[in-house]
Amino acid sequence: MAQAAQAPSGTRDFLADEVRRRKAAFATVSEVFERYGFDPLETPAFERLEVVTGKYGEEASQLLFKILRRGVHEASGKPDLALRYDHTVPLARVIGTHGAALPSPFKRYAIGPVWRADRPQEGRFREFVQCDIDTVGSTSPIADAEIVCALADGLEALGVERFRFLVNSREALRGLLEVYDIEASIGDGVLATLDKLDKIGTQAVAKELVDDRGLEMSVAERLAEDLAADDPGLIRAKLAASERGQKGMAEVDRLLELTAELGERIVFAPRMVRGLDYYTGAIYEVVAEGFPGAIAAGGRYDGLVATLGGPDMPACGGSIGIERILAIQGAKEIEAAGLDVALTVLGGEVELMSLAGRLRSRGLRVGTYLGSSGKLGKQIQWANARNARFTVLYGPDEQAVGEVTIRDMRSGDQTRVPVGEAPDHLARGVRD
Amino acid sequence: MAQAAQAPSGTRDFLADEVRRRKAAFATVSEVFERYGFDPLETPAFERLEVVTGKYGEEASQLLFKILRRGVHEASGKPDLALRYDHTVPLARVIGTHGAALPSPFKRYAIGPVWRADRPQEGRFREFVQCDIDTVGSTSPIADAEIVCALADGLEALGVERFRFLVNSREALRGLLEVYDIEASIGDGVLATLDKLDKIGTQAVAKELVDDRGLEMSVAERLAEDLAADDPGLIRAKLAASERGQKGMAEVDRLLELTAELGERIVFAPRMVRGLDYYTGAIYEVVAEGFPGAIAAGGRYDGLVATLGGPDMPACGGSIGIERILAIQGAKEIEAAGLDVALTVLGGEVELMSLAGRLRSRGLRVGTYLGSSGKLGKQIQWANARNARFTVLYGPDEQAVGEVTIRDMRSGDQTRVPVGEAPDHLARGVRD
Repeated sequence: MAQAAQAPSGTRDFLADEVRRRKAAFATVSEVFERYGFDPLETPAFERLEVVTGKYGEEASQLLFKILRRGVHEASGKPDLALRYDHTVPLARVIGTHGAALPSPFKRYAIGPVWRADRPQEGRFREFVQCDIDTVGSTSPIADAEIVCALADGLEALGVERFRFLVNSREALRGLLEVYDIEASIGDGVLATLDKLDKIGTQAVAKELVDDRGLEMSVAERLAEDLAADDPGLIRAKLAASERGQKGMAEVDRLLELTAELGERIVFAPRMVRGLDYYTGAIYEVVAEGFPGAIAAGGRYDGLVATLGGPDMPACGGSIGIERILAIQGAKEIEAAGLDVALTVLGGEVELMSLAGRLRSRGLRVGTYLGSSGKLGKQIQWANARNARFTVLYGPDEQAVGEVTIRDMRSGDQTRVPVGEAPDHLARGVRD
Repeated sequence: MAQAAQAPSGTRDFLADEVRRRKAAFATVSEVFERYGFDPLETPAFERLEVVTGKYGEEASQLLFKILRRGVHEASGKPDLALRYDHTVPLARVIGTHGAALPSPFKRYAIGPVWRADRPQEGRFREFVQCDIDTVGSTSPIADAEIVCALADGLEALGVERFRFLVNSREALRGLLEVYDIEASIGDGVLATLDKLDKIGTQAVAKELVDDRGLEMSVAERLAEDLAADDPGLIRAKLAASERGQKGMAEVDRLLELTAELGERIVFAPRMVRGLDYYTGAIYEVVAEGFPGAIAAGGRYDGLVATLGGPDMPACGGSIGIERILAIQGAKEIEAAGLDVALTVLGGEVELMSLAGRLRSRGLRVGTYLGSSGKLGKQIQWANARNARFTVLYGPDEQAVGEVTIRDMRSGDQTRVPVGEAPDHLARGVRD
């Protein structure tokens, strides 16, 4: 036997049970998104290199899987395509390509693999599924609220309980910086540091605000402490002093109002600062008991589609961290899909094939013994390994009188019935 | 607006209706394969370059999409990975990787994209879905028959009618060459030429057999004419003179016997010569009215898994040309998936969001107007464009008394009901 080659680093082979589990999860989320009137979109696995170049920033660009030119151009050593890094750049490209043919607003979801040459580690893969939902072409707060509710329904349908949407707004955060007299030019950097509160703590954040962002220590400490307190009332009161802050709070409040059906599962969370600086309006992250980090996130990003090479259109969207959820849920028991009926083979192959056909036409999952052993014991072992509900025996005795013996693999009971009655009998047994 | 970038050459963006149509077709075929006890397998989009190198022959190797090494190695201009070219090499690799964890025999199907840098042309793409079904680890003729029946059921489920399996056997063909005293060493070349009968005709085939394969003209003409006659009785009689030929005919006859339920939809077709020389037993191609070329094909290829780097195991399998079928069927009408309920927005957003949630929890597909127009006419236009079954109006009049107006978009009828009764009313209307 040749040396066993492995799947490429950071990728996975999905065997039967895992494929079924994943497909079911993707179908569950699709159904929810469809109920919200979102349509599926599928783009190619790769894009032209110029479509992705400069769209992801320096660090992310290093993680692109680039495809070498082909034929006589291969020797150049140069790439001209790159595997999809996310679903957002392809979305912007599609709006540019198909603009007029798309509904307006364009509400689409995408559930499919993306590829990133990250260093593989526990729970981080180079090929993984992203699950995105976006509305392009609407400034309505209802569009934001729909995304939030669709994400919430999606999480619930996936069996995630006790989750909470933490809502904030880029405008509110910028207003807060105004209140602390921090210049807009260093705002993104200050927010990037504040995003680390959970990770490194109040003191370290204050220090970084001074050392790296150039704030006065007194301002840095007050800001870090006020945010760390995570007191919506306190921040709300502060924001009243800034027009920008009030506008941001209005965005947050409108979103809370329009998603009132989520009750306490959605809250204003002043210290929730998303790292990505392309958001322009309300932003949110979803945390849940039993899951480290965020399991879903999103927000409004009115400038992004144009930045990514599409037309200038308002947009909002979010995504569910479905790989993370699948990984945690993987710990739970998976029910293996067995055969409904296993057919043993002791001669009479032609009649058995015909019987198999009739069973399958009733929707039963039927396997026929394909090994070379003529021993019944060995064939029953195979039926057991395939988790068969019933096994059919059709030996010389049965063949002589046109009957089959049906063994119930749970109870061990055996019944003998005419071949012609076997489909009814088995279909009933599987249904029960 | 930025210049519209296109999808890469030879690839396609699939918009809503097309995604739904394709997904439904793939699900249909999956269900059939599952009924036969086949399990899904999903492998990564790419494999290590050494896994695919030397597996496809010179010409096909030119068509691989190779992925450039990353990070500091990118400058080398060398690839280390290649996009999946088919599902067969990954299958052989998986058997090597996961051998002990797989059921024996291993019956798997794979429905997913493969990538080939072919020159794009009408109906030929660089990213397209292959639909494969294979049984590895069984020499039983039942395994071959199962594949044939699964392919037949799959085609039928896809709506392909009047198809016919043309069956032959590599052994029978080799036996036939023996009967004509053609040396085994040039057999594959002779068969490759005979495979062109349909394309270039009897005379041209005879000429090529002489010019390129070195046969005597008298032998070449007899062989070409005998095969072109497509007379099973004639060939059967000839094969009786060769042990190899008899063995091949026995393979064909056993397959016909075990697939008797297909009736006249499966026949021995002596002139059916598949080009690929890795087949070792029964082989078949499926032709159907309205479809040019073969729409499915397969056979037994006992040596292939080892050749492709896996362990030495017997195997048989086939595939459905699902892209070809989808392309032909694409001409038929597609029913667009519209909204069940379109909610217009004339104030009252919070109540509307709550109503939307209740409608969705009944499984209805609900869209809310996300534009900026306050004019009802404009919003009804939107509902029409979204192919809505019902439109809900909730203007100031309705809000004042807690009612909604429901417009049936087919009949134009309007009904006014209390908001609380709207979900029942609409769910009933959509069901009817």
